[in-house]
Amino acid sequence: MEKRVIGVDIGGTTVKLGLFDAAGNILEKWEIPTRTENGGEKILPDIADAIAAKLAENGVAKTDVIGIGVGAPGPIDDEGVVHAAVNLGWGTFNINETLQGLTGIATVSGNDANVAALGEMWKGGGKGYRNLVVVTLGTGVGGGIIVNGQMLTGCLGAAGEIGHIHIEDHETAVCGCGNSGCLEQYASATGITRLGRLMLEKTSEPSVLRDGEVSAKAVFDAVKAGDAVAIRIAEQFGDYLGKGLAAVGSVLNPEVFVVGGGVSKAGTVLFDYIEKNYRKYVFHGSREAKFVLATLGNDAGIVGAAKLVLDKNEA
Amino acid sequence: MEKRVIGVDIGGTTVKLGLFDAAGNILEKWEIPTRTENGGEKILPDIADAIAAKLAENGVAKTDVIGIGVGAPGPIDDEGVVHAAVNLGWGTFNINETLQGLTGIATVSGNDANVAALGEMWKGGGKGYRNLVVVTLGTGVGGGIIVNGQMLTGCLGAAGEIGHIHIEDHETAVCGCGNSGCLEQYASATGITRLGRLMLEKTSEPSVLRDGEVSAKAVFDAVKAGDAVAIRIAEQFGDYLGKGLAAVGSVLNPEVFVVGGGVSKAGTVLFDYIEKNYRKYVFHGSREAKFVLATLGNDAGIVGAAKLVLDKNEA
Repeated sequence: MEKRVIGVDIGGTTVKLGLFDAAGNILEKWEIPTRTENGGEKILPDIADAIAAKLAENGVAKTDVIGIGVGAPGPIDDEGVVHAAVNLGWGTFNINETLQGLTGIATVSGNDANVAALGEMWKGGGKGYRNLVVVTLGTGVGGGIIVNGQMLTGCLGAAGEIGHIHIEDHETAVCGCGNSGCLEQYASATGITRLGRLMLEKTSEPSVLRDGEVSAKAVFDAVKAGDAVAIRIAEQFGDYLGKGLAAVGSVLNPEVFVVGGGVSKAGTVLFDYIEKNYRKYVFHGSREAKFVLATLGNDAGIVGAAKLVLDKNEA
Repeated sequence: MEKRVIGVDIGGTTVKLGLFDAAGNILEKWEIPTRTENGGEKILPDIADAIAAKLAENGVAKTDVIGIGVGAPGPIDDEGVVHAAVNLGWGTFNINETLQGLTGIATVSGNDANVAALGEMWKGGGKGYRNLVVVTLGTGVGGGIIVNGQMLTGCLGAAGEIGHIHIEDHETAVCGCGNSGCLEQYASATGITRLGRLMLEKTSEPSVLRDGEVSAKAVFDAVKAGDAVAIRIAEQFGDYLGKGLAAVGSVLNPEVFVVGGGVSKAGTVLFDYIEKNYRKYVFHGSREAKFVLATLGNDAGIVGAAKLVLDKNEA
């Protein structure tokens, strides 16, 4: 029987699962709800049941599964210990050991952003690179870092929190993390909306943005249509994000930034605003980093989780 | 015959060399001048001659030398290729191959700050840790990053340039790197002097700093003596450095920051100003990082270079 790999991407509302062959091709993917009640105690048992059912359905023996890879939203260290994942209700425990106990299949896990970064390197926008930073511009700003082909997790699994780089001293609003002036407050979808509203209040200039909802999509649609106010909002966004990524670039000297998340649907127009500011603020030795779009979308997590299994198995 | 290791730390004016046993004990150390003329063409031949003479003097056969480790001030990638080291006059070439050709001994090299960080992890302030950032507060602000016990070099060897994180939008003075508002402009010895002069101009308050040279040492001596103006300068320094290291912390989630360089001679009083600001600005998952002083001083480079050889030999 050909070998199989399972990739699991645990989100706050759904768990995405994928059945892969050993070359990383997705054979099948499906989802189950994430039951976060009672400290998220059902999440891993639900995943174990879903995997057992899928293997049975496909006539795959456990012994033909190389392993299960898991990405989850929280700080997870190299041993698979999660150090409190607030969105899932989880405290501190070893994911690898727990899921392995429930399934009888070797499990390896990591922070979802780092795991997704591994996916983008393997099969997505970062293909061909071994030193990359995946920047996810969604509700928040997430970061996944790959150094020499491997996830950079940090001592407690909290590396890559680029959305919480302090970037603005004059902020009074409080970020979700409790600090003020985090990159996420300006460069996420929510951040762009906020920058947009503030800009529209500050000026009486006409703008198509006055006609509807001020979303990140609306701002970049208006930018593409040449709306002057929208362009100023994009300049602000680009200055903040370019500056934040420049700090990351000066520290890591990556080959490429892979930009994903909902905001990235605007496309390469984003780079018109990010890149020039990145190059302005970064140390010259890191000025040549490339910017590309992520291509895997919601599959990045399960693909990266499968890669994590194969890497672990190789090592 | 017992095995030996050579550690070499190339600086802009002198080259430091060390003869080590395989456990990393320094048996002997010495220096030669760095001849930077003619594109620094004599630097590696001079080092090869110095090593040959020292081995002869000690009756050590080449075959008993495990290898030569080199740290040099410039971006050096994992293959040993230096990508222009301005202070040495060097362009782009492979240090490992060149010095190995001159000596007949296997050579491995890295950026001096990264190599020194390896030294501090092995035998210095970072002993017992495997995820650390060495911050060198000297004429400039240097950084050396160790992740899982290994140097983080970046794709072109330009990682760890924490002195050039952009930290101040309102700066008009230009940093040595060509940008404006780099951390180095406030947290280096020169930067502290500048902060001090500006503060003394801004206020007419009495201060012992008005009586002599406004050096980093004078500022922190005055802080220890309770001088109110000096304390305000230290607060400014700590705010800038804490903010810069917080960006590094949010990206890397290190266990410890090891602070060295001339400014660190002020001692742990520095931490009174750095730590609280670090913890204020950093993402909460990285808030518990420790701060310690570097302990190897000028030996960090040769010790790290020796460690580089032993690590390479083990791998």
